[in-house]
Amino acid sequence: MNYRQLVKQIKSKQSFLCIGLDTDIDKIPEHLKKCDDPIFQFNKEIIDSTHDISIAYKPNIAFYECCGEQGWKSLKRTANYIRNCYPDIFLIADAKRGDIGNTSKMYAKTFFETCDFDAITASPYMGSDSIKPFLEYQSKWVIILALTSNKGADDFQKTTLSDSKPLYLKVIETCKAWGNIDNMMFVAGATQAEMLSRIREVIPKHFLLIPGIGAQGGDLNEVAKFGITSDCGLLVNSSRNILYTSSGKDFAEQARKSAMEVCKEMGGYFKEPYLNLFQ
Amino acid sequence: MNYRQLVKQIKSKQSFLCIGLDTDIDKIPEHLKKCDDPIFQFNKEIIDSTHDISIAYKPNIAFYECCGEQGWKSLKRTANYIRNCYPDIFLIADAKRGDIGNTSKMYAKTFFETCDFDAITASPYMGSDSIKPFLEYQSKWVIILALTSNKGADDFQKTTLSDSKPLYLKVIETCKAWGNIDNMMFVAGATQAEMLSRIREVIPKHFLLIPGIGAQGGDLNEVAKFGITSDCGLLVNSSRNILYTSSGKDFAEQARKSAMEVCKEMGGYFKEPYLNLFQ
Repeated sequence: MNYRQLVKQIKSKQSFLCIGLDTDIDKIPEHLKKCDDPIFQFNKEIIDSTHDISIAYKPNIAFYECCGEQGWKSLKRTANYIRNCYPDIFLIADAKRGDIGNTSKMYAKTFFETCDFDAITASPYMGSDSIKPFLEYQSKWVIILALTSNKGADDFQKTTLSDSKPLYLKVIETCKAWGNIDNMMFVAGATQAEMLSRIREVIPKHFLLIPGIGAQGGDLNEVAKFGITSDCGLLVNSSRNILYTSSGKDFAEQARKSAMEVCKEMGGYFKEPYLNLFQ
Repeated sequence: MNYRQLVKQIKSKQSFLCIGLDTDIDKIPEHLKKCDDPIFQFNKEIIDSTHDISIAYKPNIAFYECCGEQGWKSLKRTANYIRNCYPDIFLIADAKRGDIGNTSKMYAKTFFETCDFDAITASPYMGSDSIKPFLEYQSKWVIILALTSNKGADDFQKTTLSDSKPLYLKVIETCKAWGNIDNMMFVAGATQAEMLSRIREVIPKHFLLIPGIGAQGGDLNEVAKFGITSDCGLLVNSSRNILYTSSGKDFAEQARKSAMEVCKEMGGYFKEPYLNLFQ
């Protein structure tokens, strides 16, 4: 999927919601645990119930990996299901990978060939050759960690460099030269909304993947105020607050209600006084 | 395994070799491809042939992941095989993971519970809560990326901070406070040997995992000169140069020969003039 197609989907659905499939076997409804593949079954019902208001799904690979080979089977089935049933969906592997060139190449093969994801999240710490293998695929994206939503973001990402800039800005400035708005996004946490304006000075057009709404305390209004562009330029993720709204048989229906609440708020940005942004 | 047990094994084997199991299905000998599980079979024969001269094995998770659920099966079988047959071996998951606290907790569960690794490599970019979950396990280790062996290490790791130090030193200084020499190591590339002396000023006792010998051009002598401690304090990794010495039926025997060459050089550091180091 390219930039234009992603923007088109956002405008058509009037949503920039990404649902994080952090599917925890210990948190899914009891009645699903009797299924052959409870994690896939949970994801399938969540997806069926929200695909018309969600732009992207983002399985968090840690939650699949911890179930060993069965977890990988559930992950692959989830990715295939989305691809086959809802081909307009943007599919993100939240893997936060990054290694020397020949290893990142294997990670790219895993998430872009073995599984057909549109995008993968990656850590920039190991530099150019850890990122570039992901950019060699047509219509695939790398989403680079810049400023994350967790407390640990303070430890290194906000460190001041000798030119007085924080590290996360150097990461964005350096990485943007390796790709373009059609194959690169950056992660910027919703809990760091004021810093989005500094980020927008460096990358006025790139998409940002924004985690941290909901459970982590981020505020959608703040994010939109500092981060939105004329093409929207945002994918705002919510995971736990949507997935685990109910632990009963109505879990998918209740998840939709939670997702609808976020989308309703997002819909406000497709109306006056923002409407002129999206012409 | 704790620090003392690791040092004991190193002194007894007079080796500080770690063999990287970057097992690439496209590079293993043809005759193995008829097996049920070629990757496990390759690993098993390499391990059987080198366990008495190798301190650690380090499967590179990317190479398993790219084979989907079958890859995970091979990885788990390899880990179990080492655990059952050679319990003194130090087993490292080269995964370079790191995410917000609740996700790193899942990664820890995967590599310390679902698979029984001794250690996992992790990226520091997301800070304290991305690392600490790995430190909550007794006798398990986290190995933090500090200064890697690839070209991309120049992009961010060597960036000068406002206090004139490079980022990789700040990473080491900050992270060392979260753990101790019994549960934390750092990755320092063999291609950056001169910088090891700066690292040793900050962490005189911690173990360093040193990739980059062989295929990446690092030099063992340089590494030992700047990095060795009175407890050795080094695990030097070699992958491709050992694994793929021969593509014939004698691959395991030839791999042993390559490993022996490295070990012979390592043995020199257990003799005069270094011998007094290890008393």
